[in-house]
Amino acid sequence: MTTKAYGARAADLPLESMDITRRTPGPRDVQIEIRYCGVCHSDLHTVRSEWGGTKYPCVPGHEIVGQVSAIGEKVTRFKVGETVGVGCLVGSCRECPSCKAGLEQYCEVGFVGTYNGPTDDPPGHTLGGYTQRIVVDEYFVLKIRHPEEQLAAVAPLLCAGITTYSPLRHWKVGPGQKVGIVGIGGLGHMGIKLAHAMGAHVVAFTTSESKRQDAHDLGADEVVISRDPAQMQAHARSFDFILDTVAASHDLDALTTLLKRDGTLCLVGVPELPHPSPNVAVLVFGRRSIAGSLIGGLPETQEMLDFCAEHGIVSDIEMIPIQDIDRAYERMVRSDVKYRFVIDSQTLR
Amino acid sequence: MTTKAYGARAADLPLESMDITRRTPGPRDVQIEIRYCGVCHSDLHTVRSEWGGTKYPCVPGHEIVGQVSAIGEKVTRFKVGETVGVGCLVGSCRECPSCKAGLEQYCEVGFVGTYNGPTDDPPGHTLGGYTQRIVVDEYFVLKIRHPEEQLAAVAPLLCAGITTYSPLRHWKVGPGQKVGIVGIGGLGHMGIKLAHAMGAHVVAFTTSESKRQDAHDLGADEVVISRDPAQMQAHARSFDFILDTVAASHDLDALTTLLKRDGTLCLVGVPELPHPSPNVAVLVFGRRSIAGSLIGGLPETQEMLDFCAEHGIVSDIEMIPIQDIDRAYERMVRSDVKYRFVIDSQTLR
Repeated sequence: MTTKAYGARAADLPLESMDITRRTPGPRDVQIEIRYCGVCHSDLHTVRSEWGGTKYPCVPGHEIVGQVSAIGEKVTRFKVGETVGVGCLVGSCRECPSCKAGLEQYCEVGFVGTYNGPTDDPPGHTLGGYTQRIVVDEYFVLKIRHPEEQLAAVAPLLCAGITTYSPLRHWKVGPGQKVGIVGIGGLGHMGIKLAHAMGAHVVAFTTSESKRQDAHDLGADEVVISRDPAQMQAHARSFDFILDTVAASHDLDALTTLLKRDGTLCLVGVPELPHPSPNVAVLVFGRRSIAGSLIGGLPETQEMLDFCAEHGIVSDIEMIPIQDIDRAYERMVRSDVKYRFVIDSQTLR
Repeated sequence: MTTKAYGARAADLPLESMDITRRTPGPRDVQIEIRYCGVCHSDLHTVRSEWGGTKYPCVPGHEIVGQVSAIGEKVTRFKVGETVGVGCLVGSCRECPSCKAGLEQYCEVGFVGTYNGPTDDPPGHTLGGYTQRIVVDEYFVLKIRHPEEQLAAVAPLLCAGITTYSPLRHWKVGPGQKVGIVGIGGLGHMGIKLAHAMGAHVVAFTTSESKRQDAHDLGADEVVISRDPAQMQAHARSFDFILDTVAASHDLDALTTLLKRDGTLCLVGVPELPHPSPNVAVLVFGRRSIAGSLIGGLPETQEMLDFCAEHGIVSDIEMIPIQDIDRAYERMVRSDVKYRFVIDSQTLR
């Protein structure tokens, strides 16, 4: 089946309209007509091959919401017409200890990304959500229980939402805890909403005074301007957990010193240039940890979507037609978006 | 009371014999005639003011074993004649959350070190174990249940033992786990013995082929020469926990990549020059952590001593007269000791 898509033919070319082929649904496949697709920083990095290894044509997009239009004969969990989502993963080995634990994002063979991953389908690598249609093994398809009017704003939950939800859950964030969220962008604004909904006392860290009111509106109990040493010092040794969503290289000691004994600083961004080497004494003299976390597995992504539906949580978005994608990338690079672009997939027609 | 000691009058002077004053035991104090005192790298760093802030005269030593010679009227836990130990701490606030949790090493007011710590006693800072006698609040005194012939080799348990025992326990090392111990020195040789006694599969990492047999003799199931990339690669993604006892600056990525998903690399040494900045992607793509750990609190130090007595564990030592301390320091700097020097305190007379 041919379907309309938007993608890049080379790292230095803008995205353009193109036709791509989707496989006929196999016995366990779900075919989805895409309605919305969020725009993630990873899309831009991959399209431009900034991480290297991008295969072209490249069709990005891994925050997908749509409706089931066909199912394979052995599909049991979905019906035609259902609203579903697809996130960052469309395959994994299903047999390694991580996969068996439902942590497919850590698949020891390597998960298959929703775009730029290995596949037998043409053209030999996966093509993502900047398209009208996608075909995915039902295991990697998620149920969406939000109401119709929220569906566009649900799309970013599939990456930005789960990337922040998973570490908050793994490190058991909840009532009685003081939790920091560093960076108020696509990931951070979800981190604030989720940590707040989990019952924690939430402190947002931003370099920008202009985001203070926004952070409060998103659910932060306190806002700290991280460039101000006095504001930072006032929170020394007080955090149970800090989720750092900033990918740019920055001083981690300014954050680890704010952790209580046994506190964890969790990084979800990989910097292009290394962070300054963290001060080991700060770790040793408080049994503190610096950890990393990657998106989430399928069971936890479903749990996150259900948690968000129950708590009325969606992303704050700006909807765009696909034709504006290059301009959206430019604005995203400048952090000029509150807080996630979502493509209206109708505009692909 | 005046007692013989060995200490330094300035950072650039060798240790020399001196008389120091110990306080008359207060109601809760235990007076101890010291029999053995281990020699720790921290002694050397402090005597030479390599960390800065050393007060002189400086009498180091915080791996102390001796006999109770007097007790204050309110002392309940000890009797005259009992064999006891004193480690790195002789005071803490006793009221902060860490102290209340028995984790006095993380006292939020700051613990009082056995030497170079604040005290009202003359000369205004604490003086350590390179001496015939010490007076310590009973809370900071430990019971020693090892037999008489092992007492010299028990001394290093008070610092090297607890520094490795505490993280192994905190990160729940036990049967069925694969645990790495990096560096086979004063700390590392205890780490191997303890992790082995806890039932883990122990892999020792050393840069020195010459330590291979020793590591096996200490209890390592496998030995890896960490300079050999092929040997390292063979252990990729296989460790539950790695305890890194090496203080010199080194490549942490070579170790974090050996951790399984959710594994922890725990550092117990603080490098003089920073380690190369660790690769964040290695943390993110396996939810791995880099943590620090500092000695241990009083309850856990007692638990460690009891565990060692039960399992017949002591340190491997070389006994020296106090007069050889400068030569011992020189050899310690060259790692020319298997694996801890212990001062025979009789030689102070």
